[in-house]
Amino acid sequence: MDLNADLGEDFGVWRLGDSLALLDIITSANVACGFHAGDPLTIRRTCAAAVDRGVSIGAQVSYHDLAHFGRREMDVEPEELCAEVLYQLAAVDGIARAMGGRVSYVKPHGALYNRICRDPEQAAAVVEAVAHYDPSLPVLTLPGSVVHAVAAEAGVTTVCEAFADRAYTPRGTLVPRREPGAVIHEPSAVSARALQMAVKGSVTAIDGSLVPVTARSICVHGDTPDAVRLARAVRDDLLAAGVSLRAFA
Amino acid sequence: MDLNADLGEDFGVWRLGDSLALLDIITSANVACGFHAGDPLTIRRTCAAAVDRGVSIGAQVSYHDLAHFGRREMDVEPEELCAEVLYQLAAVDGIARAMGGRVSYVKPHGALYNRICRDPEQAAAVVEAVAHYDPSLPVLTLPGSVVHAVAAEAGVTTVCEAFADRAYTPRGTLVPRREPGAVIHEPSAVSARALQMAVKGSVTAIDGSLVPVTARSICVHGDTPDAVRLARAVRDDLLAAGVSLRAFA
Amino acid sequence: MDLNADLGEDFGVWRLGDSLALLDIITSANVACGFHAGDPLTIRRTCAAAVDRGVSIGAQVSYHDLAHFGRREMDVEPEELCAEVLYQLAAVDGIARAMGGRVSYVKPHGALYNRICRDPEQAAAVVEAVAHYDPSLPVLTLPGSVVHAVAAEAGVTTVCEAFADRAYTPRGTLVPRREPGAVIHEPSAVSARALQMAVKGSVTAIDGSLVPVTARSICVHGDTPDAVRLARAVRDDLLAAGVSLRAFA
Amino acid sequence: MDLNADLGEDFGVWRLGDSLALLDIITSANVACGFHAGDPLTIRRTCAAAVDRGVSIGAQVSYHDLAHFGRREMDVEPEELCAEVLYQLAAVDGIARAMGGRVSYVKPHGALYNRICRDPEQAAAVVEAVAHYDPSLPVLTLPGSVVHAVAAEAGVTTVCEAFADRAYTPRGTLVPRREPGAVIHEPSAVSARALQMAVKGSVTAIDGSLVPVTARSICVHGDTPDAVRLARAVRDDLLAAGVSLRAFA
Repeated sequence: MDLNADLGEDFGVWRLGDSLALLDIITSANVACGFHAGDPLTIRRTCAAAVDRGVSIGAQVSYHDLAHFGRREMDVEPEELCAEVLYQLAAVDGIARAMGGRVSYVKPHGALYNRICRDPEQAAAVVEAVAHYDPSLPVLTLPGSVVHAVAAEAGVTTVCEAFADRAYTPRGTLVPRREPGAVIHEPSAVSARALQMAVKGSVTAIDGSLVPVTARSICVHGDTPDAVRLARAVRDDLLAAGVSLRAFA
Repeated sequence: MDLNADLGEDFGVWRLGDSLALLDIITSANVACGFHAGDPLTIRRTCAAAVDRGVSIGAQVSYHDLAHFGRREMDVEPEELCAEVLYQLAAVDGIARAMGGRVSYVKPHGALYNRICRDPEQAAAVVEAVAHYDPSLPVLTLPGSVVHAVAAEAGVTTVCEAFADRAYTPRGTLVPRREPGAVIHEPSAVSARALQMAVKGSVTAIDGSLVPVTARSICVHGDTPDAVRLARAVRDDLLAAGVSLRAFA
Repeated sequence: MDLNADLGEDFGVWRLGDSLALLDIITSANVACGFHAGDPLTIRRTCAAAVDRGVSIGAQVSYHDLAHFGRREMDVEPEELCAEVLYQLAAVDGIARAMGGRVSYVKPHGALYNRICRDPEQAAAVVEAVAHYDPSLPVLTLPGSVVHAVAAEAGVTTVCEAFADRAYTPRGTLVPRREPGAVIHEPSAVSARALQMAVKGSVTAIDGSLVPVTARSICVHGDTPDAVRLARAVRDDLLAAGVSLRAFA
Repeated sequence: MDLNADLGEDFGVWRLGDSLALLDIITSANVACGFHAGDPLTIRRTCAAAVDRGVSIGAQVSYHDLAHFGRREMDVEPEELCAEVLYQLAAVDGIARAMGGRVSYVKPHGALYNRICRDPEQAAAVVEAVAHYDPSLPVLTLPGSVVHAVAAEAGVTTVCEAFADRAYTPRGTLVPRREPGAVIHEPSAVSARALQMAVKGSVTAIDGSLVPVTARSICVHGDTPDAVRLARAVRDDLLAAGVSLRAFA
């Protein structure tokens, strides 16, 4: 199993999360590319630290929206979105290579991540950027996302991830954040769910039913105060149960 | 001889210069990287058009300053400047490669261009970025710039350019823009100077003395109303005099 | 009748439209506030020129989106949108006052203009900003917009505008730009429509039917190559027909 | 005596300092205006909280440089700098007024603060903006700054501040941050210095000599981890010694 987290989300003087601590826990680092967070120096330092620790680097591409951290959906024209994704992917891959590594996958961020789960036009724009840059790079996304079919058509691979700290509906989708019980905060509960996902390939939905989960990566969040402690618990419990952790890409 | 010009300096809805017309005239295109001008879609279109016409692509790296077009000097820390140059270079090279070409040289823009002619610390930051990314990429700059020695030490090549539409001092430096006679507007005068530079390796300074010029490229400006006409005159007169035009990189 | 146009939409080195020429034609200037266009120096110069000519100044508030000129719809939280509108309105009013004038009305721009015609939540956010800043400032908008009721409830006035160069549906709404015939380019046709709007209070819809128009202002566009010529034709024909032109606010 | 601190320096999702805690301690709040920090919603909330607590609001105007927190000196043309200061001052004053307060003074930030201590051209640009907006607003600055004479000539008042946590040279200037002993971290030492400044009008310089200090305000820093504790110590010790605290403006 792979553990991925968002990293390098500082900007200028501002800090967010503890990237260095997370890099000792996870196996895949979604590095912010400068469009929702991450200035060039932060990108360079984050890539260097990931290379040092043998953590796989992903380009965490986003809408261009520093003021709102890429969390607002935007009606960007596909041709423009494609160019924006290409720009971010190239910038971070080039920096990663200069630091002795490389970008191994692409994970869209925030509102773009959500949008391409259901909007085939924007999904195609993201996939086209990946196909143009390096069609061997997989796109990390949700099961059931519209991006799978779009990517398959363009010869781009997709990889599914699961969220150990999010409640699931009986249909296998995430319970929206606004609903009660959507986010699970208790570390032991979160790591128990991660274990169930990794070992049994299932998750217990919010109504108690058992739902299959076919994820090659589990996403742990990096921007909450408890993020490092939670991620550490997930890692330790998976390792203790004999699950080996390694990057999917 | 090579002819270079700044291109791709649109941003969003705003236009500046006529990149497509210039691409039919010049042999090397200094493509704006998004920090002083040039959004991702503009970069992509400019690179695609340059590849179509066989024009060499340079990364026109800049201070991060859209509001003032990279024309203000800034006291950026060297480590940060290096990361910013690396980011821009990687972004444009990645887009150029996705369009079937690649970045063949680096030309700093505006205030950064001027600063690294005399500031060894910022010059070293720019050179370090090039050395990290691809030490085979030459840096296009002025004769007499401090960047030559700094680059040589880092194993990076420099290439000198000359300005056919700028007056020179007897010492071979440019007459500052604020002084009278600093910029030459008459197309026939500009192309006569370009011819003298290309054929005789000299320029007539503002005091009438003859000064040697050892340039492998002549810069024509792209952002004035007459830019295309002036560049066309230079190209036609050089070709008519039997000077062959080709990219230096 | 009032003639309004978007002005001051330069940014840094980039130019858009001919604000000074338009200021000699129109009676109300929608001054860009820096969020989709308009840097502080442009705002200051535009306000000074409007004050000189006795043209009424409106704050052309927008989503924060320089890269796309405020043309992309965004899901901004109402509380944040309200603060953003307040910031822009205060900045331009303060500059206008320092130049001897003041902001007399508010005209939302681009995607925000369209959004608040149908989204009561964002409409309320814009209206709340106006109410907080100065409830006597009218909001310039379309007939039929949801913003009228929202503003009325908050004690804010609305004023309707019409578009002489846009086709209308039989229901009195604008034909979407993507449909054939949506934009009328012929100056004589545009000014004939403006005259009909001003004198008869009606417009001939795209199906030939006559539709009532109750506008106190006619919007002429400022960013097309023909903008000044078109606006001049509308002004001249209205004056020739005895329609007096003066600012509504 | 007045206590001032920099506040409202969050941006988007990013936090810096604890503005609400500081507002219970200080008497004058230097509110970031959006150019080095501070988005519109942050400005609105900070102004509302300052009005609630009766804390005086200052416009903390800056170079336009979010990426480097206004800490880089920039060669901005005076006309443009003046417009930028005017824009920021108007935006924050308008928001403050909408919240029931108003801007009572201006404090330049970071590199601009330092620059106008010695550059009469940029100092005049800042002063001109204040004079245009409201010449009754004082500018908070250092003793010995070139801005005093420039402001006096324009009919604008200046007010001096002192830094309790910074070492002074025997000439009464601040010891540069890079030199050893430049910043004093020990709360008891800082508040003892503040007391000496407030009661005796002097400070003990780094060489042990006694230097007169004629400040109407003491600046406490808001962006260090210990900021609130330090500011609280200064406030408590001043009050305990019978020094009354109130805004200078």
